[in-house]
Parts: sequence; C-alpha cells; structure tokens
Amino acid sequence: MAFRLTPHERGFYPLFTRAAENIATAADELAKLVASEPPARARPAAAVRDCEHRGDELTHDIMVMLNRTFVTPFDREDIYRLASALDDVIDAMEEAADRIVLYRLGALPAGIAQQVEVLRRAAACTTEAMPRLEDLAGLESFWIDVNSLEDEADAVYRTLLGDLLAPPDDAPPADVLTVLKVKEVVETLEEAADAFETVANTVQSIAVKEA
Amino acid sequence: MAFRLTPHERGFYPLFTRAAENIATAADELAKLVASEPPARARPAAAVRDCEHRGDELTHDIMVMLNRTFVTPFDREDIYRLASALDDVIDAMEEAADRIVLYRLGALPAGIAQQVEVLRRAAACTTEAMPRLEDLAGLESFWIDVNSLEDEADAVYRTLLGDLLAPPDDAPPADVLTVLKVKEVVETLEEAADAFETVANTVQSIAVKEA
Amino acid sequence: MAFRLTPHERGFYPLFTRAAENIATAADELAKLVASEPPARARPAAAVRDCEHRGDELTHDIMVMLNRTFVTPFDREDIYRLASALDDVIDAMEEAADRIVLYRLGALPAGIAQQVEVLRRAAACTTEAMPRLEDLAGLESFWIDVNSLEDEADAVYRTLLGDLLAPPDDAPPADVLTVLKVKEVVETLEEAADAFETVANTVQSIAVKEA
Repeated sequence: MAFRLTPHERGFYPLFTRAAENIATAADELAKLVASEPPARARPAAAVRDCEHRGDELTHDIMVMLNRTFVTPFDREDIYRLASALDDVIDAMEEAADRIVLYRLGALPAGIAQQVEVLRRAAACTTEAMPRLEDLAGLESFWIDVNSLEDEADAVYRTLLGDLLAPPDDAPPADVLTVLKVKEVVETLEEAADAFETVANTVQSIAVKEA
Repeated sequence: MAFRLTPHERGFYPLFTRAAENIATAADELAKLVASEPPARARPAAAVRDCEHRGDELTHDIMVMLNRTFVTPFDREDIYRLASALDDVIDAMEEAADRIVLYRLGALPAGIAQQVEVLRRAAACTTEAMPRLEDLAGLESFWIDVNSLEDEADAVYRTLLGDLLAPPDDAPPADVLTVLKVKEVVETLEEAADAFETVANTVQSIAVKEA
Repeated sequence: MAFRLTPHERGFYPLFTRAAENIATAADELAKLVASEPPARARPAAAVRDCEHRGDELTHDIMVMLNRTFVTPFDREDIYRLASALDDVIDAMEEAADRIVLYRLGALPAGIAQQVEVLRRAAACTTEAMPRLEDLAGLESFWIDVNSLEDEADAVYRTLLGDLLAPPDDAPPADVLTVLKVKEVVETLEEAADAFETVANTVQSIAVKEA
C-alpha cells in the first residue's frame, strides 16, 4: 500500500464492486427473461426487480458515505457520477424487464437478445474493473473494452430500429401498437448500454487524474 | 442563529422557498386543467405557463447569486442541483399542460388526475421543506415523504402505461395516434415526479453533509 | 493580457473553438440533407457522421486536458459542462441525420428545415463566441442570442408536433408509423437546440463568475 498524505475512506471500493456484481446478476436474469416464452418471464423479471432494489440500497450507502467523508479517495464529483451511472444501468435494465412483462409482449426480435448479451459482457468487464479502482492498475483496457461494446450495442440498436420502423417493402404490415411497445424496450436497453459508457468514462477520468 | 466561521449569503433560502411555492401554484392549476372539459382548459394552461416563466426567472436569480457569491451556505454543486431539479419539475408540468391543449385531447384517463394529485402533495411537502434548509431541521421526513410519493407516482404511471399499451383483450381497439399523445402526457408527468425525487435527494445530501 | 496569479492551461480555448466550428460544419451538411431528395441524402448524412466522430475526438482531448491540468482557466465543472453540451449538440444532429436516412423518410415537413436553420444560426453564434472565452468580452450578447434562438426553436417544434399529432380535421388521415418516425427526428433536432441553450448558460455562468 502506497504512502498517502491523508488517510482516506477506503469503504467505497467494496461498495462499487458489489454494485457491479449486482448489475451482472441482473444482466444474467434479463438474458433468461428474453430467452423465455411469455409465461416463463415472471420469475426472471422478479429477480431483476430484486436486483434493482439492492442497487438502490447500494447507491444510497455510497451517497451517505460520500456525504459523511471528509477525504475521499477521488474527486467527490467522480464518486457521485460513478454511483449515479451504475444506478442508471440497473434502472434501465429493470425498466426493460418490466415493460416486456407489462406490455404482454409475445416473441421478441432476435436483436433484443443481442442487446442483452452486450450488456452482460459490459457487466462482466465492470465487475472485473471495480476492485482495480483501489490501485488504479489496468483500467485503460476497461475503458477501451466498454467503448467497443457500446459501439457494438449502437450497431444492434440501429438495425433494430430500422427493422422496426422501416421494414422491407415485402414485410407483412406492422402492428403499430406492437412497434411502439418493442421500440420502448429497445430504447431502454440502449440507455443501459449508454450508462455503461458513462461508467467507463468516469473511471477513465479518475485514472487520468491520479496518474 | 448559530455562530458561523464565515459570513455567507443567506439570500438563497427565500429564493428556494419562492420556487417551491410557484411549483405548488402550478400543480393546483394543472389539477384544474385535467379536471376540466376541453373548452375550459385554456385558462389553467395559461396559468401553468405563467408559473413556468416565473420559475425561469427564479432559477436565473439563483444561478446569478450562486455565481456571484464567494461563500455559499452549502456546496455550490448542491445549490446548482437543487435549482436545476426545481426547474425540471415546473418545466415538466408546463409541458404536460401544453401538450394536453396542443394535441386537443378529449377525456383523459383517470390515472392522469392521480398523477397530478401526487405532484400536488409533493409540491406541498417541498414548500414546507424549503424554509427549513436554513436550520436544516426536520428534513429527514421530507426525504422520506417525497420518496414514498415517488413510489406512488411510479405505481400509477405503470398502471397507466399498461392500460394504454396493453389494454384487456375485450377493450375496444385503441386509436394509436391517441395512445401516442396520451403516453407523452403521462411520461411528462412522471418526469415531474422524478424531478421531485431529485429535489428530495439533493436536500438529503445537504442535510447529511452539514450534520 | 491581464496579470494572473497563477499560470494556467490556455490550450482549452482553441479546442472549444474547433468544437464549435465542427458543429457549424455539421449544421451546414444537415441543412443540405433536409433540402435533398431521398436519393441525394446519403452524402450529407455521411458528412454529418464524420463531424460527429471529429467531435468525439475533440471532447476526448478536452477531457484529457481537463484531467491532466492542475490550474484550469475556469471552474473544472464549467469546462466539463461546456464540453459535454457541445458534444450533446453534435450527437443530436448526427442522430437526426441518421434517422432520416435509416427510416427511409420521404418528403419532410417544412418545419424541419426551419429547425435546422435555427441550429445553423446558433452554431454561427457559438463559433463566434468561443474565442472570446479567453478575454470574456462580449459574451452577454451570445447568451441573449442563443436563448432567443431557443425560443424560436421551441415555437417551430411545438407547431410541428401539433401538425403531426393533432392535424386539422379535414387533413388526410395520418400514417401512424410515419408520424412516429418524423416525431423522432423533430424531437432529436429539438434536443440539439436545448443543448445549445446549455452551452450558452454555461458560458454565461463562466462570464459572471469571472466578472
């Protein structure tokens, strides 16, 4: 452990790691949900909801620690941004899971499973990166990997929107209410991918400042 | 009045209180609007618009004071966040009022009046809490109450979306253009509820730091 | 040049100017795109995409400089907000251009060209204002002009939404899928106008603090 001029609160690191692990669990359950037939979706949807509640508690714990701590390991704003972005990831995942069930959607376009797969990989990268915040080692690859996953997510998202709103001329006519519902799910999953990018950008910002 | 090491600008407190009172007035007018038949909606809609302009002026005054003040009572970022969140509340209320009139919506689902009722209660809590920022007394209950109102707003919102996009099979077929319009109003009112939660979280953050 | 107590990094000014110039180029290409028949839209859309990539690089350069610089000319948060808002402008422009092509939209409502024209004028104001950040002279008119352009953008946006979602009773029945697609383009262009307002508000905030 390096010598430091001021002691600082180390309790942030395990909380960020647990927030990332919780997101990874939610992503796994979301993958089960989108792979399920409608009647089997209730159970994974409930599991994602549980993760979202646990995420709220973790965010709350981080914020309380932030507000009570005089010397934080990084800029206060960076801790605030990182906690908020992790919270945004899981909120978006939970909203997507909820809407699929609430809207009683039938079969989902294959691209939605691809969106969720990218989220699972981003969650795995994040879970691996959070403990490394303590010694700030090897975080450059995290930033590169998540940005590359975000590019992949964008491409899947864009194809889904095109297929949904501008289907080929020989496709059967779309049911517009279904288009509306699926579009909302697709957009919410894209918000989760965007929030992972904010997580990665904040981590890079922390790493550069401390370098 | 407690002894303080540095004199600081006290002018923020009345501005925040006035911003909250202005939101409460807007919420009352919004309630009148959604309870009115279409021809009678113009007047409360204009009143909400007036409140939004007054809110803009108050936000502007807070920001100018923030930028000109060397020693602020709380963290500058907290003052910025609180002013922005109050502004987001009234912007969303005004947008909802405007869209109802602009889209020439007919009868509204009963859930919309419930959304507005939750906003009125959140506005009342906020009006009561703002003057207490000065001595930071009794703000814990504000945070708890607004978060509980936000849960209530979420439940109403979710039911409205379900009814709108996945109506029971025996319901008459929906007019999709109307679904689009009502969905936008419902979502905008939910944004107002979310912004109240940000107000409450920011106030809690201020209270914890100063404790 | 005024005497300063601390030397500070001056490299921010040219980066902000280049970001604004890049936005102005994107706005010109976007104007070409919306004035073109569908088959001629691919080329200006690609040019807007190129600008968006250049914008990402500039944002990245500003953030790296911000994180590596001990004494910044303005508050770190203001630099962060200004860079983010400029990035939001160009992201929204690129998304609008992309959606017009992706959704294979036919003729566009005339109001869309008006929205883009307002964006071009806001881009011209911003390009002119950025170099003046260095001596903070004459920035009040920038803030006034962009806020007045934002009001103009709001009026155009509102009319477009009304025409789209609540057309006159004697208008031919709308194709709801087309309404959905055009609405998304119109909303994305409005986001660009809102982001310009954030640029102007941040610049005003910088100017007031330094006054």
